[in-house]
Amino acid sequence: MSTSAASASPAGSRRRHPPAVSTPLIPVLAVIGVGLIGGSFAAGLRQVSEVGRVLGVDRDTDTLERALALKLIDEAVTLPEAARRADLILLATPVGALPEILTELAPHLGPNTVITDGGSTKQDVVAAASQSLGKARTRFVPGHPVAGSEKGGPDAARSDLYLRRRVILTPLADTDPDVIRRVRKAWQACGANVVEMDAERHDRLMASVSHLPHVVAFAYMTQLGAADDVDQRLASAGSGFRDFSRIAAASPEMWRDILLANRAAIRAELHELQDRLQQFDALLESADGEALEGLVADAAQLRRSWRL
Amino acid sequence: MSTSAASASPAGSRRRHPPAVSTPLIPVLAVIGVGLIGGSFAAGLRQVSEVGRVLGVDRDTDTLERALALKLIDEAVTLPEAARRADLILLATPVGALPEILTELAPHLGPNTVITDGGSTKQDVVAAASQSLGKARTRFVPGHPVAGSEKGGPDAARSDLYLRRRVILTPLADTDPDVIRRVRKAWQACGANVVEMDAERHDRLMASVSHLPHVVAFAYMTQLGAADDVDQRLASAGSGFRDFSRIAAASPEMWRDILLANRAAIRAELHELQDRLQQFDALLESADGEALEGLVADAAQLRRSWRL
Repeated sequence: MSTSAASASPAGSRRRHPPAVSTPLIPVLAVIGVGLIGGSFAAGLRQVSEVGRVLGVDRDTDTLERALALKLIDEAVTLPEAARRADLILLATPVGALPEILTELAPHLGPNTVITDGGSTKQDVVAAASQSLGKARTRFVPGHPVAGSEKGGPDAARSDLYLRRRVILTPLADTDPDVIRRVRKAWQACGANVVEMDAERHDRLMASVSHLPHVVAFAYMTQLGAADDVDQRLASAGSGFRDFSRIAAASPEMWRDILLANRAAIRAELHELQDRLQQFDALLESADGEALEGLVADAAQLRRSWRL
Repeated sequence: MSTSAASASPAGSRRRHPPAVSTPLIPVLAVIGVGLIGGSFAAGLRQVSEVGRVLGVDRDTDTLERALALKLIDEAVTLPEAARRADLILLATPVGALPEILTELAPHLGPNTVITDGGSTKQDVVAAASQSLGKARTRFVPGHPVAGSEKGGPDAARSDLYLRRRVILTPLADTDPDVIRRVRKAWQACGANVVEMDAERHDRLMASVSHLPHVVAFAYMTQLGAADDVDQRLASAGSGFRDFSRIAAASPEMWRDILLANRAAIRAELHELQDRLQQFDALLESADGEALEGLVADAAQLRRSWRL
C-alpha cells in the first residue's frame, strides 16, 4: 500500500526535492474548502517544503478551526482576502458551489494569481470558470486528483494522499502554458502522476470508472434498506459486500453535484450496464452455465489485469 | 483488521481452548478440495490443536502437493479412503461438484463419520445430500463460512480466515443434533460465530448480500472490457473502482455453480436492483438534485451503520 510505503520512506520522486532554502514553489497557497482534498494538497506541499503560507477558507467554522489545529492551514481568511493574497488558489469544495465562489473571487484576484480545482467533474467547472473569471480564465487550470476516501473533512487529510495517484488536468485552449506548468509542478510535488486531456473526455472516463459504480452502490444500498429483513441481511454480509458497497458511504451533497454535472455521460454508461444486467438475467433464466462461466471468466481476467 | 489482531494475540475465544493433551475434537479430518476454504479450516483447527491427522483430496495433483508442502494436510488420499478413515469430512469444492462427490463417498462412509460443507449455496447442497447419502444424511450438516478472498488455492489459506466471521449452518429437520453440535464446535474452534437457519432463508440472504453484488461486478467488468478505450478507462480508475470491482476477480467455475444453484433468488434481487437503477435514471433525466441527494443520503447512512 502506498500509505505504509510513504510513512516508511519518502518516494524517490519526492526525495529529489531539495530543502527549499530560497522561495518555495508556492509562497502563498489558498485552499477553498479545507477537507480531505484541500487539506491533503496543503499537507503534501508542506511535506516537501514547497509552500510558504497556507490560507484556508471554509463556510464551516468548525472545519476551519480543526484545520488550524491540525496545522493544515496557517490562517483562516475570507474569499476576497484569499483572492488578493494567494499565488495559487485550490478550489476544493463540492462542484456545485464553484459558480458562486468563482464569481465572488473574480473581482479580487491578483494579476498573477493561478487558480486550479479538485472537482470530480470538469465540463461544468470549465463552463463556470469561463462565465465568471473574465480575462483571469487564462490562469485557471481545471484539475481532478483521482484519489479520495469515503472519509472526508480535515481529519482525513494526509500528506501522502496523492502519492503515485493520477491527477488529470483539463486546460482550455487559451489557458496560459506557464500556468499549466506551475499547477502541474504543484501536484507533482505532492507525488502525483499528472496527465492532461480535454474536459469532455475526462467526464466520460469518470462516468465509467467512478460515477457509474457510485450510482450502482447507491441504488444497491437503497434496495437493501427497503428490505423487511435488512438487519438479517447486513448481519450475513462479508468482505465482498464490504468492498463492493464502500463507495456508497459518500457525501450526499458532493455526489448530488457530480451526478447532476455529469448526468448525460453517466446515463449513457448506466444504460449500457442495464443492457448487460439484462443479458445476465436472460442467461440465469435459461440456466446457461457455459455462457455465464464465460462472462465471469472475461470479467475476472480483466479485473486481475488491473493494478492501482 | 482481524488479520493483524489475530497475529498480534490470539482472540479471547481461542485462548480458552486448553492444549489438547488428550483427544482433539477431530482425530481425523478429511478436506475434499484443499484450497482457500478447506485449507483454512484445517489450518484453523491445527492452530488450536483440535485436529489429529488431516487427509486431503483434490482432483488437481499440483494443489495436493502444494497443500502437503504447506503442511495444510498430512496425507493425500482418495475419496473412498477419506470416507473410510475420517471422523469429519469437509466438502470444500465448487458446489456443482458435490452431487458426484457425495455419490462416490456414500458407500464408503464410516458408521459415525460426520460430513459438512463450505458451499455458498445451500438448497442445492441439501438436495444433493438427500439424494446421495441415504441414511447417512442425518450426519450431514450443510454449512457456509461467510469468509473468503478473491485469491484461491492452498497458498491463500490462513488459520485466521474464520476468526470472528459468521458461519451459517442449515441442518435438515432430521439431522442428528449431536452431529450439529460437533460441526458447530469445529467452526467455533476456528474462531467463527456460528448461527443456524434454514437453507432457503440462507440462499435468499446470500442472493442479496453476495450473489447480486457479484453479478453486478461481473456485468460491469464485461461492459468495461467491451469499450474501445478500455485501457484509458482503467488507467483513470482509482480506489473506488478498486473496491467496487474486486469481487469480479472470482473463480469462473465456482461462480457458474453459485449462479445456477441460486438463480431464482438472484433473479428476484436483480429485478429489484434494475427497478432501482431505473429510478436513478429517471431522476438523472429530470435533474432532480433534491431526490438524488436524498437517495445518496439514505444509502450512505445505511452503509455507515454497517461494520464487518
